[in-house]
Amino acid sequence: MMFFRFSTSSSFSSFSIFPKHHIFLPFKSYTTSFLAQIMPCKLIFRQLFEKESSTYTYLLADSLHPDKPALLIDPVDRTVDRDLALVKELGLKLIYAINTHVHADHVTGSGLIKTKVSGVKSIISKSSNARADLFVEPGDKIYIGDIYLEVRATPGHTLGCITYVTGDGVNQPQPRMAFTGDALLIRGCGRTDFQGGSSDKLYDSVHSQIFTLPKDTLLYPAHDYKGFTVSTVGEEMLYNPRLSKDKETFKNIMQNLNLPYPKMIDIAVPSNMVCGLQETKSDL
Amino acid sequence: MMFFRFSTSSSFSSFSIFPKHHIFLPFKSYTTSFLAQIMPCKLIFRQLFEKESSTYTYLLADSLHPDKPALLIDPVDRTVDRDLALVKELGLKLIYAINTHVHADHVTGSGLIKTKVSGVKSIISKSSNARADLFVEPGDKIYIGDIYLEVRATPGHTLGCITYVTGDGVNQPQPRMAFTGDALLIRGCGRTDFQGGSSDKLYDSVHSQIFTLPKDTLLYPAHDYKGFTVSTVGEEMLYNPRLSKDKETFKNIMQNLNLPYPKMIDIAVPSNMVCGLQETKSDL
Repeated sequence: MMFFRFSTSSSFSSFSIFPKHHIFLPFKSYTTSFLAQIMPCKLIFRQLFEKESSTYTYLLADSLHPDKPALLIDPVDRTVDRDLALVKELGLKLIYAINTHVHADHVTGSGLIKTKVSGVKSIISKSSNARADLFVEPGDKIYIGDIYLEVRATPGHTLGCITYVTGDGVNQPQPRMAFTGDALLIRGCGRTDFQGGSSDKLYDSVHSQIFTLPKDTLLYPAHDYKGFTVSTVGEEMLYNPRLSKDKETFKNIMQNLNLPYPKMIDIAVPSNMVCGLQETKSDL
Repeated sequence: MMFFRFSTSSSFSSFSIFPKHHIFLPFKSYTTSFLAQIMPCKLIFRQLFEKESSTYTYLLADSLHPDKPALLIDPVDRTVDRDLALVKELGLKLIYAINTHVHADHVTGSGLIKTKVSGVKSIISKSSNARADLFVEPGDKIYIGDIYLEVRATPGHTLGCITYVTGDGVNQPQPRMAFTGDALLIRGCGRTDFQGGSSDKLYDSVHSQIFTLPKDTLLYPAHDYKGFTVSTVGEEMLYNPRLSKDKETFKNIMQNLNLPYPKMIDIAVPSNMVCGLQETKSDL
């Protein structure tokens, strides 16, 4: 298991039991949920939308850390300038540009961000076989200040799909938040007919890695096409028209979607394999 | 000052000092911000997007009240079915469909909602001169369970524009949330050249009614065209390219926007004056 922890010198150190910047109170007689209320983390959180590909980019930062370290999940090349302007206005220090998977419908902004902000590291799953500065595996933790994202493997839309879940603990965001990429969409899911996709794997991924989270966990997907911004584990378990079904029904549904060939795939996938910047492979 | 409070019999009663469903603890030695953490309200909150007019609709409900009473702010006619399906799935009881103003760019869903869900009351400002079941004035409070919205007059985009602000108190959402309609958009504002608009009035409205809220107040506008979902008072005071300027500069900017005639205004405004349903005026 690997831990990425931001420090002012930009080096990584392993997990510490007592993170900085928290108030410690006697808690013998308190419940966990009570503690969650009195020991808040101060997450800065922004959901950002890219209209053409209906992609959500997420900005997370630890406002209590003196450097306000931040990361972007699934940035889009077209909206990099908007996102970086916001990072600057909020006084944040962007340290990671991370992807849930190799997207087939838009070009990632990770590489472009690295050319514009020095010190930013790109992150993707090891199993994606894409290029990046850092590769994560299930169980790894990505820290921004004292807030962390846990890496969960959720293959099925692509072989290398991961879901990032905020930490489990009284000093982590409450309720928990899961950034599901295309594995789980609000009342839907990503297609499974390209890039090593497998409806069998996707069903297992969602049921073992996402539906086992607390029911109030907030779900933030990589896309939405109907104007929803967020869902919860409890809601999707009940109302997801595909994944609330049994596995065989799900596989049947996915086999009979008859979707057109993804219009951006031949441009986006080769580009996203190298952080969105095909021209400057050596700088990734 | 008027108070709209939901009760199971659907009648209104006046404000009570000790709302139900809250835990009371000895708080002599605690600060207000500490109390805010240990006496949480349980707001259900959803931001919903209508792509064609780039309109945000907001769903708010009190999850601690046994009936889970809910309201929709600025529903759009086209997305009423989506919104009502969500209300149903979340097990909420929709009691109000409220508008920030008479919109010129889309048809409100208020009237349509009333035809589909019995008991829902439409709300708009008295100064809008539009039709609705209930009219609000500055200082009024609209209750869903124990959570309330305070009404603030923010004319300037239209004469009847209001901003709804979540309550001030330890049992209300923290940080506060302001639904600004078109008075204040993220890094922008609504135009002031139609419907009794006035750049002079808009400047005063925003500076006296919105910029005086705590700086961490979350701002949720009626529209966004660049993919932003939320801002804060502090951010807009610093970075709003129009409203962070002095009044004369602001008035000059607004006078020189050279915007085209609003394409939907001739359909939307007459319709929205009667809750979005011109045909069935008598049922509003």
